[in-house]
Amino acid sequence: MKTIVIKEVELNGEPTDIRIEDNLIKRIAANLPEEADVVINGRKKAVIPGLINMHTHSAMTLFRGYGDDMPLMAWLEEKIWPNEAKLTHEDVYWGAKLACLEMIKSGTTAFFDMYTKFSSTAKAVEETGIRATLSSVCFDFFQPEQREKAKAHIIKLFGEKDNYSRRIQFALGPHAIYTVSGELLQWVDRFSKEHNVPVHIHLAETETEVQSAVKRFGCTPVRYLDQLGMLSPRLMIAHGIYIDDEEIQMLADTGVQVVHNPASNMKLGSGVAFKFTEMRKAGIPVGIGTDGCSSSNNLDMTEAMKLASLLGKGWRKDPVVLTADEMFFAATVQGADMLGINAGRIEEGRLADLCLIDLNLPAFTPNFNFVSNLVYAANGSCVDTVICDGKILMQNKRVPGEDEIMERTAAIAYKLVVK
Amino acid sequence: MKTIVIKEVELNGEPTDIRIEDNLIKRIAANLPEEADVVINGRKKAVIPGLINMHTHSAMTLFRGYGDDMPLMAWLEEKIWPNEAKLTHEDVYWGAKLACLEMIKSGTTAFFDMYTKFSSTAKAVEETGIRATLSSVCFDFFQPEQREKAKAHIIKLFGEKDNYSRRIQFALGPHAIYTVSGELLQWVDRFSKEHNVPVHIHLAETETEVQSAVKRFGCTPVRYLDQLGMLSPRLMIAHGIYIDDEEIQMLADTGVQVVHNPASNMKLGSGVAFKFTEMRKAGIPVGIGTDGCSSSNNLDMTEAMKLASLLGKGWRKDPVVLTADEMFFAATVQGADMLGINAGRIEEGRLADLCLIDLNLPAFTPNFNFVSNLVYAANGSCVDTVICDGKILMQNKRVPGEDEIMERTAAIAYKLVVK
Repeated sequence: MKTIVIKEVELNGEPTDIRIEDNLIKRIAANLPEEADVVINGRKKAVIPGLINMHTHSAMTLFRGYGDDMPLMAWLEEKIWPNEAKLTHEDVYWGAKLACLEMIKSGTTAFFDMYTKFSSTAKAVEETGIRATLSSVCFDFFQPEQREKAKAHIIKLFGEKDNYSRRIQFALGPHAIYTVSGELLQWVDRFSKEHNVPVHIHLAETETEVQSAVKRFGCTPVRYLDQLGMLSPRLMIAHGIYIDDEEIQMLADTGVQVVHNPASNMKLGSGVAFKFTEMRKAGIPVGIGTDGCSSSNNLDMTEAMKLASLLGKGWRKDPVVLTADEMFFAATVQGADMLGINAGRIEEGRLADLCLIDLNLPAFTPNFNFVSNLVYAANGSCVDTVICDGKILMQNKRVPGEDEIMERTAAIAYKLVVK
Repeated sequence: MKTIVIKEVELNGEPTDIRIEDNLIKRIAANLPEEADVVINGRKKAVIPGLINMHTHSAMTLFRGYGDDMPLMAWLEEKIWPNEAKLTHEDVYWGAKLACLEMIKSGTTAFFDMYTKFSSTAKAVEETGIRATLSSVCFDFFQPEQREKAKAHIIKLFGEKDNYSRRIQFALGPHAIYTVSGELLQWVDRFSKEHNVPVHIHLAETETEVQSAVKRFGCTPVRYLDQLGMLSPRLMIAHGIYIDDEEIQMLADTGVQVVHNPASNMKLGSGVAFKFTEMRKAGIPVGIGTDGCSSSNNLDMTEAMKLASLLGKGWRKDPVVLTADEMFFAATVQGADMLGINAGRIEEGRLADLCLIDLNLPAFTPNFNFVSNLVYAANGSCVDTVICDGKILMQNKRVPGEDEIMERTAAIAYKLVVK
């Protein structure tokens, strides 16, 4: 059994020691004995739960900065889709590996992913030591043959899920209601119920999507999923900007969960009026995500917390709403609960998924309110040490092998697309 | 004469050498001889002009994170004003010193400041080596005695302006139209004209301000300044969110300059609909600022560029507007021109105010578009080296004496206010 002791680290403003045994936080108290495999000096550092990124497409790091500031459809049709079609398992593996590196460096210890080539993303997760719930994106474009292929692929991946370590969970990822038929959506929902796995879908992201849904299905996206019988606690909606009051109540009544992606929503011009406060008031779990690197363009959850808060305060013209504490809760406790993992808190008996924050930075000077400084003043570079599942993934802001990951991934990206 | 040669640094995607003599960029070319006082290895780094923060209140670093998420008036009346009233010269000096440190560390080489205790901020600027245009904030609260005191203070400060180095410029800082009488505003404008110094004012920041102006002066803030005869190229408006199309034309016709502060506008709930595109189309110079650390809560211009772009795209629902290139222009070329300094570009003959960016980071992997990555993916921690006025202020992400500045400033902040 591996043991780690962190000495004199700040937790809620007070210094304490933390003992980790195997993959759990065993003890939190002052003056713990230093008998451990590794002793970490926590002075001038604060401990936080590892952040949880609830929506991304990890391998899209390959397309970072490739086609920014373009109209949405031109960007997708000219830049993203033709290159995604060329992706090999090797490409996805390196793209996901860079994503894992970037997340570790900025304090994320678990993420929810939706992309193709499940096993390659899983390999990157295994090797880098982070935790993830992976969903293989599925489409049928309303074509029966594609539908059958999608089902067979899901069944195959689900059959392989026990090949992976305890850090990897399986989920279903129907892309969106405009790329996946109602028939496949209902099949996915039944599969999800039968095997108790989550369903992740992009929903109510743009006005165009809502208008097409009304035209095509005769109702708004949330009502359409309701008609398909898909609203349940297993459903996780990414984006959910265009959701009216009645729909919020429908989501709350059925236990649906929502992921807010402020950077992506702003940068792609999807919209700004995400109803965080109303959803929380109705009892809906709301997590925070970065979205993939070709729309956001990084995986920094510290920045995502700040953007969520600032955007909410801004469009509402209310400095009191979406507080730093609420954002921190969403990115830790809420994220962990949404993933169904025993993490998101620094408490005895919880998974040892945690970060040490370097307080010796202007962003934490003065440090009247640590959470406020973390959310509003700092960025991901404040993370000094990352432990996930009881293993040290980063110390002194360096991840072993990081230079190779960056070099290899860059080379693959340049080969993949014309620079 | 001091000389620096930077070898093999990326400029617009191509490697080059740069020779600095005294405080100027002397030569940009490949294979320059290494004969210089200092030779810097620029490999895996890109050179950019030092960023220019066009609106801040530097010593307010002292109040970072002190009273976030509060209603605006309660925050000002309970948290900020009572503590600002207690500020000594020593407090402002250390607060400004922390601000200069934070700006240097995140790649800012020049800033426009508005605060009390001019000479103490100036001392911090002198010692840290950054460049600044400082305006002593002035108020009269519509009281004749205060007005005379304000005028006398301005005259005194102006008389002392030649005591400072070439890195410090003098400006006038009437706080706002609701704290400064029309009489004092006009006096400031005459003083500005006579001595050719800029006038910096908070204007059209909130809906409340506009409503009060209409009630008190019978017109909107911009029209009020027009009636006072103050619209001129010497005038610089901070915020300017509530400005209608006719007012945009009035500003353009008179050469008025505007500073956009997206983080502050969002966090304080002032509003989101800053008309960047319309102002630029009309020919108005628009710079970017962070505002002070008690409203924004950091001084990271990389983040400010991203926020300006994302906010503009978001509320307009248009991913094409406010491009990374436009933001980078606003934070470099435009800022330099607004300050009237020969900087903001990496060109021979320009001031040697520049930064080397560490490209060995996930944010620059892959690096299809450097400016896009800088604005959308990176944050201030990507800055490795900062040179201002030909002097190296930071190398390898460390500023000499940074620990002492943080320790001393934190101690002062904790003594000043109850933690």
